[in-house]
Amino acid sequence: MEYFSSDFILGILGGGQLGKMLLYETRKWDIGTKVMDASDEAPCKIACNEFVKGSLLDFKAVYDFGKNVDVLTIEIENVNLDALEKLEEEGKKVYPPTKALRIIQNKAKQKLFYVDNGIPTAEFHRFAYKSEIADSINNGGLEFPFIWKAAQFGYDGQGVKVVRKLEDLEGLPSGECIAEEMVNFKNELAVIVARNVSGEVKTYPVVEMEFHPEANQVEYVICPARIDDKVALKAREIALKVSEKIQHVGLLAVEMFQTHDDKILVNEVAPRPHNSGHYSIEASYTNQFEQHLRAILDLPLGNTDNKVAGIMVNLVGAEGHTGKVVYENIGEIMRMEGVTPHIYGKKQTRPFRKMGHVTIVNKNIAEARTIAQQVKEKIKVISN
Amino acid sequence: MEYFSSDFILGILGGGQLGKMLLYETRKWDIGTKVMDASDEAPCKIACNEFVKGSLLDFKAVYDFGKNVDVLTIEIENVNLDALEKLEEEGKKVYPPTKALRIIQNKAKQKLFYVDNGIPTAEFHRFAYKSEIADSINNGGLEFPFIWKAAQFGYDGQGVKVVRKLEDLEGLPSGECIAEEMVNFKNELAVIVARNVSGEVKTYPVVEMEFHPEANQVEYVICPARIDDKVALKAREIALKVSEKIQHVGLLAVEMFQTHDDKILVNEVAPRPHNSGHYSIEASYTNQFEQHLRAILDLPLGNTDNKVAGIMVNLVGAEGHTGKVVYENIGEIMRMEGVTPHIYGKKQTRPFRKMGHVTIVNKNIAEARTIAQQVKEKIKVISN
Repeated sequence: MEYFSSDFILGILGGGQLGKMLLYETRKWDIGTKVMDASDEAPCKIACNEFVKGSLLDFKAVYDFGKNVDVLTIEIENVNLDALEKLEEEGKKVYPPTKALRIIQNKAKQKLFYVDNGIPTAEFHRFAYKSEIADSINNGGLEFPFIWKAAQFGYDGQGVKVVRKLEDLEGLPSGECIAEEMVNFKNELAVIVARNVSGEVKTYPVVEMEFHPEANQVEYVICPARIDDKVALKAREIALKVSEKIQHVGLLAVEMFQTHDDKILVNEVAPRPHNSGHYSIEASYTNQFEQHLRAILDLPLGNTDNKVAGIMVNLVGAEGHTGKVVYENIGEIMRMEGVTPHIYGKKQTRPFRKMGHVTIVNKNIAEARTIAQQVKEKIKVISN
Repeated sequence: MEYFSSDFILGILGGGQLGKMLLYETRKWDIGTKVMDASDEAPCKIACNEFVKGSLLDFKAVYDFGKNVDVLTIEIENVNLDALEKLEEEGKKVYPPTKALRIIQNKAKQKLFYVDNGIPTAEFHRFAYKSEIADSINNGGLEFPFIWKAAQFGYDGQGVKVVRKLEDLEGLPSGECIAEEMVNFKNELAVIVARNVSGEVKTYPVVEMEFHPEANQVEYVICPARIDDKVALKAREIALKVSEKIQHVGLLAVEMFQTHDDKILVNEVAPRPHNSGHYSIEASYTNQFEQHLRAILDLPLGNTDNKVAGIMVNLVGAEGHTGKVVYENIGEIMRMEGVTPHIYGKKQTRPFRKMGHVTIVNKNIAEARTIAQQVKEKIKVISN
């Protein structure tokens, strides 16, 4: 199949920032694209060859969209899987495959999958309804504190909450959920695994993450993680095992905890380019978006090594600001060494909304970390 | 001025591959763009916010286009300068400024500018008409061989010819031209200088170029040039001097000869992102397109150093192939270490047409050079 400057069309479900960054790569290779998103203001609206407005959860919309592309991929996993399955049955190339998405889309299923496949993960209970949680506590089956997670449709810290007392459950959705042990971890790590259609597999270096304590969004992603080589190797091996068992095609971002006794527990996975891989645009030989394309088009995978160390800082909307976005002091941070801002193109900011990210690269990781902190202290995403 | 996710509009005259790569950066920063090009099939047609079809040499088209943007830049220097001048007079920000473009657009003027400013350049004669060349030869004023260059509108090896005998002039345009001494050089070098509106200036490392002997198009661009540090310093100093004298804003690519006795002679300049800077997308801390944007928007300039060594190979249409393009063996080259193809999006190939380029990066420049040759031997731009 000819992909380059040909009639080939890649379909992308979802038109957010991940899709937008994927489009840099389709443009680089002149690969034709069609994007579907529910919003007319989707960041992907320009730079794709055709934009279709439609709900990603609607069977007919997804099916009709998929019929008219050559390969179908996603930039968000909350899509109608029945439509994908029907397309697959009819011979359409859907990557990641629906089977992998079914495991991942539901967090309860995902956790059971880890257990079934001998993949280390935190202890958890699964509940069909939130109301069952209180019973479980009363019966001594569950203890505070724990992490409540909605089984479906959580995103960017939505659908996740630390529960320290019964009242913390108030206001949360009532549906299927899990209650997960709060892991007392030393580090949060992630490994991105790429797997192409032919089964070639590569892992990116381990990254180290720091989360904002309340918003449950990443503050710094540091690559390579400043951890022991043996722990890094173990993390890559476990990520490879998840990848092998889940049989995805494309990228799989595997988020993990490193415990104080250096155990690795898999937290959750995403079968697509991931926030924890944004550093790769500036730091890696092959960035994650190009790698995702290589994988789903069954091209040879590229080198996943770093050219230089990379640190990523999310640009999230400041508290107290809702409205037309202004990136305060963005010129100031561009004066700093090795700093590249990425602006996703959302015109309206609100507290904790992911509006962009900044990458800091440097040959010296400690120097990069110092600059990253300066970036974080300087730039503010506000409204005017 | 707010540029990021604002109502600001950058106008770009020209919709070719340089504009297309510039658009990756405007997308990265969500800077609104309007592009004008004469062709409906311009590579820039997608990824800009608005595309206008119009002739770049037409006064009214350029003027009307420029009226409706906030800052106006170019990706090709053959544009109507009277229109730019009028826009400037009316207060529009035009970068590079018309004055710099007037010097550059006409190669005879450009050469006189070097002489007037004490910038070393090859000996030359200027002729108002081609017919004057024969007279000059007959009078002993000019000797074979020399390089004939059309004063205006040459591009990518068009408008340049080695003349070894009178008959070589046949078929060339009859208008203003120069006859330039053939420099017996050791290396062809280039230095890109960035200058922002406030006058901050940075130079990129020296690159070394190898040209195809007939097509007069670059075969390899190697960064950093494998030359003596003193020569590299001299080349950067001379490039800085040209930049200072010409008072451009944005990038200035300065092409130079290194003679056998290590003199540096300026060959010609381009006031925009340049083929000799494409390596920077993968190899540099700040690629040339981002740097051009930073410069014309008066943002701080980024680090021009290399993360790793970079070599660029042009993908030009193979001889004997005209028609719908096919990139033969592109999958094979993607299997090689540190190789990134760029496809410009021209659907039709023809002999020597610039269809794309391939960048090879590596920590070891000799290794990169070996791989670059393998790339060149493997990939072919053919028609099907």
